[in-house]
Amino acid sequence: MSKISLAHGSGGIETSQLLTRLILNRLPEWMKSLRGGLGLDFPDDSAAIPIGEGYIVTTIDAYTVSPIFFPGGDLGKLAAAGTINDILMLGGRPVAVLDAIVIEEGTNIDDLSRIVDSMISVLREEKICLVGGDIKVMPRGQLDSILITTAGIGVASRIIVDKNIRPGDKIIISGYIGEHGAAILAAQQGIKSDEFKSDVSPLTKLMLPLIEGYAGDIHAARDPTRGGVAMALNDWARGSQTMIVLYESELPIREPVVNLCEMMGVDPLNIASEGTTLLAVSPDKAEEVLCRMHELGYREARIIGEARERASSVGLVVLKTLIGGARILEPPSGELVPRIC
Amino acid sequence: MSKISLAHGSGGIETSQLLTRLILNRLPEWMKSLRGGLGLDFPDDSAAIPIGEGYIVTTIDAYTVSPIFFPGGDLGKLAAAGTINDILMLGGRPVAVLDAIVIEEGTNIDDLSRIVDSMISVLREEKICLVGGDIKVMPRGQLDSILITTAGIGVASRIIVDKNIRPGDKIIISGYIGEHGAAILAAQQGIKSDEFKSDVSPLTKLMLPLIEGYAGDIHAARDPTRGGVAMALNDWARGSQTMIVLYESELPIREPVVNLCEMMGVDPLNIASEGTTLLAVSPDKAEEVLCRMHELGYREARIIGEARERASSVGLVVLKTLIGGARILEPPSGELVPRIC
Repeated sequence: MSKISLAHGSGGIETSQLLTRLILNRLPEWMKSLRGGLGLDFPDDSAAIPIGEGYIVTTIDAYTVSPIFFPGGDLGKLAAAGTINDILMLGGRPVAVLDAIVIEEGTNIDDLSRIVDSMISVLREEKICLVGGDIKVMPRGQLDSILITTAGIGVASRIIVDKNIRPGDKIIISGYIGEHGAAILAAQQGIKSDEFKSDVSPLTKLMLPLIEGYAGDIHAARDPTRGGVAMALNDWARGSQTMIVLYESELPIREPVVNLCEMMGVDPLNIASEGTTLLAVSPDKAEEVLCRMHELGYREARIIGEARERASSVGLVVLKTLIGGARILEPPSGELVPRIC
Repeated sequence: MSKISLAHGSGGIETSQLLTRLILNRLPEWMKSLRGGLGLDFPDDSAAIPIGEGYIVTTIDAYTVSPIFFPGGDLGKLAAAGTINDILMLGGRPVAVLDAIVIEEGTNIDDLSRIVDSMISVLREEKICLVGGDIKVMPRGQLDSILITTAGIGVASRIIVDKNIRPGDKIIISGYIGEHGAAILAAQQGIKSDEFKSDVSPLTKLMLPLIEGYAGDIHAARDPTRGGVAMALNDWARGSQTMIVLYESELPIREPVVNLCEMMGVDPLNIASEGTTLLAVSPDKAEEVLCRMHELGYREARIIGEARERASSVGLVVLKTLIGGARILEPPSGELVPRIC
């Protein structure tokens, strides 16, 4: 009788395997393929249901982050931003959010209130309606925390589907890698330092102008949350039948994050960002998109790699190292950081 | 510093008060009113977002039922049916469901698998796509159970909004009252008896033909889940500015359910149904709708009361008792049955 392990929730290989075994393998084709849209046949940040000339874009995520308050944000901000970003990543304009809260008897109402306020603040700033919700209470001793699950609804006239990456596409990242993961890791370890602050924030001000201006040129978009950049790029390469080459010299990772990861034995490419996106952009527009990102305030944005024809003998994602070598960047596996989001 | 109590999750007065304090009072008007649609300004089973000539209907619910396997169903069936029913209750045709699962390290994968299979079976039978999902794992000792949150998406050309009940409308119930609540109560108490079986099931085969045939005549629809018939009717009366009169002699409650409730000190009108609906129907069509319900296989359906002009001196919901008296049916308060859904 097999048991769930923490690795099943880390967003790496074990999570994919569990979802395949539990869900994807059990669904008949029609239940996962939304003809003309995007369903679970090609898992992406959101799903797209065709309607009229466009799409309803929708997503759901459960947030279990611990601690619930952390430098740079809290559970409520994370839930709102995470859902908004998943809609944006498919090329959608977020319109409405729904939330379901599960708490334990004895939960401090002031804490709950701060978390909910924080969620509402993000939605208010982004002009997104809160259209529905639920709240459940478990008896004392049955739940250690506050859980929030948020679902989002957006609309799109055209969607950005990650399987459309083509050889030659440039891989752009909008900011520093692993900032959310490092902040949570530091908080979980009781490390008090101003160096670590989650990047959690909605990417609306970046993505809406890019979607507007470059919809056909952006072939993929993903916020590298659980599983980090390594998981996102492995998913991309696998789904699009390409190989992705990354230049280590170009990766924007702050020194304190590198050091913390080294100390904890995790790879910064495996831990989450919550306010940063990866884009795959057609080569003729990559510089222009990058410029626009800088103008929009994402000054650390840079090209970190490119997609190539897949060569069967090497891995899906290859990291060209600083010393001129190359190593295969495997999708993450094992426990990584529990309750990172 | 106030604390969450079990009563906050029972779906009665305390739940409403908590949601008002935490969420409704904090939202600016534009965030809850979907002009031309239905948002949190008039909480109903689902929300309706206007799009083109119609609506996107959407809902979210967290399911925490204990035990996760119970006579008549399990957590997975409950989550799927509950979400489908919430879409139907607003006049929507369910199209897609998303799920977010939270489990603990050490959870038995076979149990999880049975639950997920059960959810998928309901969706498959109802021809609804599963378009997205999430899974999170909490470390051992932090969560007592399997939690599933499901969100649903439907489409409607016309919506059934409970505030539209008018004096004269007949109140119809589609089947026996309190069957789900009694089954959970019995299971929680370790009572083994064939008498108690949850009614959990999707109401699609009832509601889609009724929506098709009588959309303008059905002024309200609600499945009386948490808080039961008492909460649903109090919400209806308050929202529609009417008074609702119920005839005790007409209430379909099975004897074993009455006896169990008496033993446990709960009112059967306060406990959940999960496959039964209340309808408010214009008086000239009520008999016809009732006949159609019988034809559709809901043979216990009957008229149990009516809406009247509100008289300020009496309560919102009045129960005409068997012995000819009248008592005010208050919305439920207190702990009721924890983790009923």
